[in-house]
Amino acid sequence: ITKLDMELAAIEKGGFDHFMLKEIFEQPTTIFDCLRGRLDASAGTIRMSGVDDNLDMLTNARRIIMVACGTSWHAGLVAEYVFEELCRIPVEVEYASEFRYRNPVIQTGDVIIAISQSGETADTLVAIDKAKEQGAFIFGVVNVVGSSIARVSHAGAHTHAGPEIGVASTKAFTAQLAVLYMIALKLGYAKGTIGMERYTHLINELHMVPEKVATVLESSSRIKELAEKYKDSTDFLYLGRGFNFPVALEGALKLKEISYIHAEGYPAAEMKHGPIALVEETLPVVFVATKDAYHEKLVSNAQEIKARRGKVVAVITEDDPVFTEIADDTMSVPAADELIAPMLGVIPLQLLAYYIGLAKGLDVDKPRNLAKSVTVE
Amino acid sequence: ITKLDMELAAIEKGGFDHFMLKEIFEQPTTIFDCLRGRLDASAGTIRMSGVDDNLDMLTNARRIIMVACGTSWHAGLVAEYVFEELCRIPVEVEYASEFRYRNPVIQTGDVIIAISQSGETADTLVAIDKAKEQGAFIFGVVNVVGSSIARVSHAGAHTHAGPEIGVASTKAFTAQLAVLYMIALKLGYAKGTIGMERYTHLINELHMVPEKVATVLESSSRIKELAEKYKDSTDFLYLGRGFNFPVALEGALKLKEISYIHAEGYPAAEMKHGPIALVEETLPVVFVATKDAYHEKLVSNAQEIKARRGKVVAVITEDDPVFTEIADDTMSVPAADELIAPMLGVIPLQLLAYYIGLAKGLDVDKPRNLAKSVTVE
Repeated sequence: ITKLDMELAAIEKGGFDHFMLKEIFEQPTTIFDCLRGRLDASAGTIRMSGVDDNLDMLTNARRIIMVACGTSWHAGLVAEYVFEELCRIPVEVEYASEFRYRNPVIQTGDVIIAISQSGETADTLVAIDKAKEQGAFIFGVVNVVGSSIARVSHAGAHTHAGPEIGVASTKAFTAQLAVLYMIALKLGYAKGTIGMERYTHLINELHMVPEKVATVLESSSRIKELAEKYKDSTDFLYLGRGFNFPVALEGALKLKEISYIHAEGYPAAEMKHGPIALVEETLPVVFVATKDAYHEKLVSNAQEIKARRGKVVAVITEDDPVFTEIADDTMSVPAADELIAPMLGVIPLQLLAYYIGLAKGLDVDKPRNLAKSVTVE
Repeated sequence: ITKLDMELAAIEKGGFDHFMLKEIFEQPTTIFDCLRGRLDASAGTIRMSGVDDNLDMLTNARRIIMVACGTSWHAGLVAEYVFEELCRIPVEVEYASEFRYRNPVIQTGDVIIAISQSGETADTLVAIDKAKEQGAFIFGVVNVVGSSIARVSHAGAHTHAGPEIGVASTKAFTAQLAVLYMIALKLGYAKGTIGMERYTHLINELHMVPEKVATVLESSSRIKELAEKYKDSTDFLYLGRGFNFPVALEGALKLKEISYIHAEGYPAAEMKHGPIALVEETLPVVFVATKDAYHEKLVSNAQEIKARRGKVVAVITEDDPVFTEIADDTMSVPAADELIAPMLGVIPLQLLAYYIGLAKGLDVDKPRNLAKSVTVE
């Protein structure tokens, strides 16, 4: 029976050594599945019944509050920037555990977007129950169909990423982003806060993500080499700005979970308000530095790290001679609109965490102390 | 001349070995100075001309946005919870560096509270300039009189903590909290979101803070012993919930700055979504666990750390048999209302950082790579 179980597990892993690696490599497919039937690039349209059926409520939201935990909370942070940029609605992102116990201000016309892979995250579930009582409209972004959060939400959109077995969330994160981008685009276009041209442009950018993610995955052997080089580092900093700041947090969380290395994410400019004291020769600082409006600032931050003899590892847009010159090592992703770039920039960081965990001989699918869904407080 | 300079420095340190220690010990006085002339406990009143002169504008704020960097950002996080609780106004806290570069939603009736010790923090200064252009009302909470942020704000309140020389901010933080509490109390009472009884109670609680801080400082030799015990730890986690979550972040930042130990703060319930993978015998986990509505949850979080053989160090309210039983070591503070407790809970964490830095032979007044005021981007 044990033998059969093991064989079944091997089949389920589809030729990959671990569920986590399989799920990282599934992302071109899972993102495609998430967009399919919704986003039509040739027609320039996005259809999502959960949004279409509640368009007035959503476009007139006084405020949107993203409620989530862990990796889903990082998806909420990306969405904060995207919704504020495209829809001009004030957005707040709350840790579900904090939101549920304090006495947050919920007003009529507030919309809660609850984000959860499992749809069973205890803190998130209780948080939205409470907000619902106070009159908020609850929109669920959930992977597991029929889950508790999906059931208690007024409306929602599934992420269609398929079952996620690895404890560290990977494909669920990029699918959450895909769904959140589509919602923001629909609302922004309906509100008139973005015009037809930008709407169509970003629809096309989203449409191309699966192919670009596949391109990033082709460089996995390069990232495996980097993992060998940095696996004995005891601490990492991850820095990003703007749309990429949450990617830095997510990259650090992946490394923590899988390799037990103490990695911490920060907005790059906050470095000077404390964390830069940690910088010395043995500290790798990972920059999420794809080309965007903040790029020049990131270059200057990276130069400060080098001036203090830290190691700079950077996720860059391909053909970035400036960062290639500064960084000790780079991982490149295809060019993309800066709003969409987080979906690409996170992929090398997932791989880096996986390969470092693997190089350290750890159980990457079941890291110590962690459960897949945190269904207790 | 060098000799004279050294003697002058010794005089300025007022008998303390370092400015940082002097400034930590000044807090009973600086908090008293900050409250003096404003808070009158016997009359049950708070006078602040910057608030009184703009009471309509402030009580009718649609939203309050705290803009700050570093330690001041942590004061903003405490204030978020306090303002939402007492004034029922939605509050957002923004890193100044992020706020200034993205395109945040600023609406008529939004109030920006800019928090800065020096009043010269470059990112904060530019951020409020931008928000001012978009029609926001700017309220400055600044220590240095006549500084740039004080000058560009529409109104404000000085923290009156006196010159802060140590690079790691200590007395400026508690003075910022004192000012922010007073503003929240005034607005909540004026709006009617808190009644006379709670208003008077919290005024009394604030009035007693200087004396209670003095009590905490009396236990400094105990904290010095703890510093000796934990000085060789390479990593720390700091956990708190609710009003104490930002205190955990601030405690971790102090340790990073002064001891170069990688310390990271987290909301305690997020531990299960990743960071708990780091827990092993060599990892001290510092709980900010003063008695409040979250206390039972913190107890359960601490038990999980012990079950995974981590070390638990806790800041507790004196006479807390439950946490004393669980924790490897405790640092106690006098009982206080849970809203006010952050002003007490942070003191042992300032001392812990100082004594660990000292035990490691580091220059605690001028940590490597850091500047006192970050007047460049």
